[in-house]
Amino acid sequence: MADSHESPVRVGLVGAGRIGTFHGETVALHVPGAKLSAVADPAPGAAGRLAGRFGTLAYTEPAEMFASDEVDAVLIASTARAHTDLVIAAAAAGKAIFCEKPMAFSLEDADRAIAAAAEAGVPLQVGFNRRFAVDFRAAQEVVASGGIGMPHLLRSLTRDPGLANPGGVPPWTIFRETLIHDFDALLWFAGDARPVEVYAVADALVAPDFKDAGLLDTSVVLVRFDSGAIAIAEASFSAAYGYDVRGEVFGSVGMVTAGEQAVTPMRHYSATGVAQQTVRGDTVLFRDAYTAELVHFVDCARTGATPEVTGHDARAALVVAVAAITSVTEHRPVALAEVDPS
Amino acid sequence: MADSHESPVRVGLVGAGRIGTFHGETVALHVPGAKLSAVADPAPGAAGRLAGRFGTLAYTEPAEMFASDEVDAVLIASTARAHTDLVIAAAAAGKAIFCEKPMAFSLEDADRAIAAAAEAGVPLQVGFNRRFAVDFRAAQEVVASGGIGMPHLLRSLTRDPGLANPGGVPPWTIFRETLIHDFDALLWFAGDARPVEVYAVADALVAPDFKDAGLLDTSVVLVRFDSGAIAIAEASFSAAYGYDVRGEVFGSVGMVTAGEQAVTPMRHYSATGVAQQTVRGDTVLFRDAYTAELVHFVDCARTGATPEVTGHDARAALVVAVAAITSVTEHRPVALAEVDPS
Amino acid sequence: MADSHESPVRVGLVGAGRIGTFHGETVALHVPGAKLSAVADPAPGAAGRLAGRFGTLAYTEPAEMFASDEVDAVLIASTARAHTDLVIAAAAAGKAIFCEKPMAFSLEDADRAIAAAAEAGVPLQVGFNRRFAVDFRAAQEVVASGGIGMPHLLRSLTRDPGLANPGGVPPWTIFRETLIHDFDALLWFAGDARPVEVYAVADALVAPDFKDAGLLDTSVVLVRFDSGAIAIAEASFSAAYGYDVRGEVFGSVGMVTAGEQAVTPMRHYSATGVAQQTVRGDTVLFRDAYTAELVHFVDCARTGATPEVTGHDARAALVVAVAAITSVTEHRPVALAEVDPS
Amino acid sequence: MADSHESPVRVGLVGAGRIGTFHGETVALHVPGAKLSAVADPAPGAAGRLAGRFGTLAYTEPAEMFASDEVDAVLIASTARAHTDLVIAAAAAGKAIFCEKPMAFSLEDADRAIAAAAEAGVPLQVGFNRRFAVDFRAAQEVVASGGIGMPHLLRSLTRDPGLANPGGVPPWTIFRETLIHDFDALLWFAGDARPVEVYAVADALVAPDFKDAGLLDTSVVLVRFDSGAIAIAEASFSAAYGYDVRGEVFGSVGMVTAGEQAVTPMRHYSATGVAQQTVRGDTVLFRDAYTAELVHFVDCARTGATPEVTGHDARAALVVAVAAITSVTEHRPVALAEVDPS
Repeated sequence: MADSHESPVRVGLVGAGRIGTFHGETVALHVPGAKLSAVADPAPGAAGRLAGRFGTLAYTEPAEMFASDEVDAVLIASTARAHTDLVIAAAAAGKAIFCEKPMAFSLEDADRAIAAAAEAGVPLQVGFNRRFAVDFRAAQEVVASGGIGMPHLLRSLTRDPGLANPGGVPPWTIFRETLIHDFDALLWFAGDARPVEVYAVADALVAPDFKDAGLLDTSVVLVRFDSGAIAIAEASFSAAYGYDVRGEVFGSVGMVTAGEQAVTPMRHYSATGVAQQTVRGDTVLFRDAYTAELVHFVDCARTGATPEVTGHDARAALVVAVAAITSVTEHRPVALAEVDPS
Repeated sequence: MADSHESPVRVGLVGAGRIGTFHGETVALHVPGAKLSAVADPAPGAAGRLAGRFGTLAYTEPAEMFASDEVDAVLIASTARAHTDLVIAAAAAGKAIFCEKPMAFSLEDADRAIAAAAEAGVPLQVGFNRRFAVDFRAAQEVVASGGIGMPHLLRSLTRDPGLANPGGVPPWTIFRETLIHDFDALLWFAGDARPVEVYAVADALVAPDFKDAGLLDTSVVLVRFDSGAIAIAEASFSAAYGYDVRGEVFGSVGMVTAGEQAVTPMRHYSATGVAQQTVRGDTVLFRDAYTAELVHFVDCARTGATPEVTGHDARAALVVAVAAITSVTEHRPVALAEVDPS
Repeated sequence: MADSHESPVRVGLVGAGRIGTFHGETVALHVPGAKLSAVADPAPGAAGRLAGRFGTLAYTEPAEMFASDEVDAVLIASTARAHTDLVIAAAAAGKAIFCEKPMAFSLEDADRAIAAAAEAGVPLQVGFNRRFAVDFRAAQEVVASGGIGMPHLLRSLTRDPGLANPGGVPPWTIFRETLIHDFDALLWFAGDARPVEVYAVADALVAPDFKDAGLLDTSVVLVRFDSGAIAIAEASFSAAYGYDVRGEVFGSVGMVTAGEQAVTPMRHYSATGVAQQTVRGDTVLFRDAYTAELVHFVDCARTGATPEVTGHDARAALVVAVAAITSVTEHRPVALAEVDPS
Repeated sequence: MADSHESPVRVGLVGAGRIGTFHGETVALHVPGAKLSAVADPAPGAAGRLAGRFGTLAYTEPAEMFASDEVDAVLIASTARAHTDLVIAAAAAGKAIFCEKPMAFSLEDADRAIAAAAEAGVPLQVGFNRRFAVDFRAAQEVVASGGIGMPHLLRSLTRDPGLANPGGVPPWTIFRETLIHDFDALLWFAGDARPVEVYAVADALVAPDFKDAGLLDTSVVLVRFDSGAIAIAEASFSAAYGYDVRGEVFGSVGMVTAGEQAVTPMRHYSATGVAQQTVRGDTVLFRDAYTAELVHFVDCARTGATPEVTGHDARAALVVAVAAITSVTEHRPVALAEVDPS
């Protein structure tokens, strides 16, 4: 970790929405050796509010920010559909890039983003935060070191704490933006095994009135690997008890589990039994993971090292998402080779 | 519960193998108001050994035992493929019937068994022991009373502690004999929702050398319900850490989980961390559930009441199993209406 | 375990109150190889009600029951103050004896009871049920096998689920009848180490209005051992969340903990967090332990073997209780040698 | 929380040992709105090493640092016996003061420190970090809001992960420096109830060879409150499984527990059972609490607000420690009025 008298990595943030603001605060306040130097957001005033708090530059045009000499590295947390083009523009400007998931909606876009970063020679990290959560990381280390033997059955799930605006959810969001985390976690846990086939089902159970408008808020995806391993990814947009993210890898000599619903170890025993409060949101559950992934990114930006989670990982997870979408559309198992013949 | 001076229900056991012997001991020693009065097993000496311990009659022919006046109720724990015909024969003899799962391998057989019991007017209970496990039961009660709202995502899993003789596993055992428990649990948890479609994958990951001989030792089955709920059933024949059975029902206003891996609450903290011993077998994990289901059966046998788990439940779970087998064979989702047009 | 065709050990129960009835049912229904053959209770009708359920003899005079040829073994579960004389009378009649705790209120009485059983050559077991609880037993086995090294700090606690009749609690009950369990557990865990000094405090916090009448409903007792180990025993007569019994032994190379508040592993997650139901009473928490201690007793009664928990253990725990009473009375640490110079 | 463009609170650290360095890093890297501006340590080179990493001033004389205009607030983490005089000197220099526990070894010293800060009108915060641990805080909030009713039985324990240099432990360290945390936690949990009497035992069980030299490495302290509540504080200098800090408050309508031994929620199931890794040190277990207490301190330094934990709290805990020392020395219960007649 950097000591504070080195010159800081100056980070320019794109997107001052909920998670962008959170990431900006993290960079400004919790990442040693980093400085939030600029914020860009096309929404009127959005960049300015955050910039005002931290004394940074404010832009409405990301392109202008990318051109600034005051920015060494770019953190992309804008609306999802803009991610790919922003990665490409930031790469062209020679900036180190952290891109929130998803990096792309199509494999072509993923390839364009990866190529742009490669050509520019800049680090490109993707926001798969579970890779930096201590329990998921410890679980993966046990798996990678052989502590469960050959993985046979895997599970990853995401349950978001609520669905505020079911009418505002873009098509296929559950696969491209939510389960993409689970697909990455499963691929990470699976190690050298490669996914070969996907079968997915999805429905609007949280907000059924929006089903006709294309909402899918609940989904289960079955992924088969070339090792024979079988994985389940599962998502819901609305868990009454909060934010629930878990992983499980069962193998020939053991099992690991990751995930925690309790927000603190405090237990309250009363006439009704014993109770624990639950985690209510991603910025609580993954606060340390969010910080850790940005600490890692800033290190890579400083040193030029390749991040632990790159555009290739984003693409690999996207292949599963694309196959899942095809599977839902065509109501059949889909070989990954169909959607990614490369 | 019966007090001990009533005349006991006299139970004749068919099958003196591992689980048959366990059930026989349970009846003889732990079910108030019951008496193990006879044991039948075609294997030379098998019935006699158990009968000798408890001073009961011994038969090699179940049919002879069914004809005995010393038997009020029959407990069928023979090899699985014999179950259906034994149910029918016991019904014909007018005995109350407890049949270990599976009751049948085909829907035709299930229908024959159900019809036989109905015609004879005898109780027919099937050995879905999770229905009598205190945690599964408590979970189901929460679901049934609305405590989690509408079920959206369900999970049931079975991991057996080991696969001693992979060459001796009959075809489709994982669906017909193992996952049949999970199918029943899912249907029970789902309440009024009806299963409509199944997609299943299965492989030989525990003992891959036996795959060509037809072994399937690892499987995941996805079940859709008419309510939109999506369920996963999962099985492995070999968990290094013991016997692992869990259930999870996630719904619109909450979640319940059931299952416990620790064999006692004792924790041992040492230089390597904190550890708990795990449950190693079904007769440990479900000891109380096995007793409870037989207490219930003996009550039904005495009173003529309809058991909580009947041949109809066995048939409903079998429909899912048959669809799963078709799904694996044909590598596609299978509508239940295809395999059970009734 | 006895098989059912051996002639059963015929058990005569003294005391048909709450716990006596429970023990009687356990013997009648859940202890293989045992038979509840008689019940004695001076309260009009009490013995008869239980005897009627199980078809046994009924007495109002225990002495008459002790004289019966129909009784091989005696289970004493009467009011506490009668225990000693009943042990002596049963011993004189040559019966194997199970005595609920406490066996005695004074060391003289304890010595009389022990001597009576010794002279008669009959097994004398005391109802320290934690010795037969699977988690306490597993913890003790870890300690005894060196898994935590030398014990340094020990804890045992009892919290009863409520105090229905604070005016009806005999003096010093918290030490003689409640903490006596904890004293025994601590001595058992401590192995070869001998207790040497006690300091105790106690108060009426649950029902302070009864303090002037002598009620003590809350207590903490500190016990020092000759090994240097320091132990805490703690009791309350009223836990709002149910019945809470725990043990902890911390030593030079580790720790064990025993005890469980949750009544089943089922967890319910809802908008208020995650909850488990708690155990509400001794006959739920220790159901299996109660059965196991009586199975053990019946085995000893049949074979004449010395029980795992004898009158000597009752006396050893009583020494601590007597010292605790002296400590409270005189408000000072009390050496065990003061109260038990032998 | 301060945004980063305000002028930072400049913190001068006294003591560049293990915990001082950790606190210095926390201020430099993890406390928004703070700046580590100076380090003072009499050990040759110690201040320089830390100062070099963060580009701060370095002193061997704390007094010189206190005189600096570059320091707004002082963080005292030197050797314990120097704390009081450093507080007084820092107060005289008009600096806001954070003092690691213990603030003083005698009540006279505590009074001098409190008076010095009061006269100077500077905030004086003491390093009782459990007040800022999320689980202890949540537990205290439940207690304070009536969620357990009247506290009856309290427990606080500290088990340090090891005793590297038993010969270098100053006399009474276990009370003044270790259990002082537990005494504070108990007083905090107890709310308005006041401690009235203490009984303590202590021994050298971890390193018995050092007992003659005055080492006490294991202790249990019983504290009575004027409400009748009875509390236990317990400490060991060597837990093989790591660092173990727990709290428990049992009251008339419930109980809360705080503390967590597992270092992450990850569980590893294998042939030997299920295991979790344990926390190995204070800077892991209380990392967030250490940050939170310094964030709070920096806020108080900026605004002049009175900290949540002041010199008065340090004194109140010290009264218990002094009484405990007297109790051990004189082998009797000690009324707090004896040691603190004020």
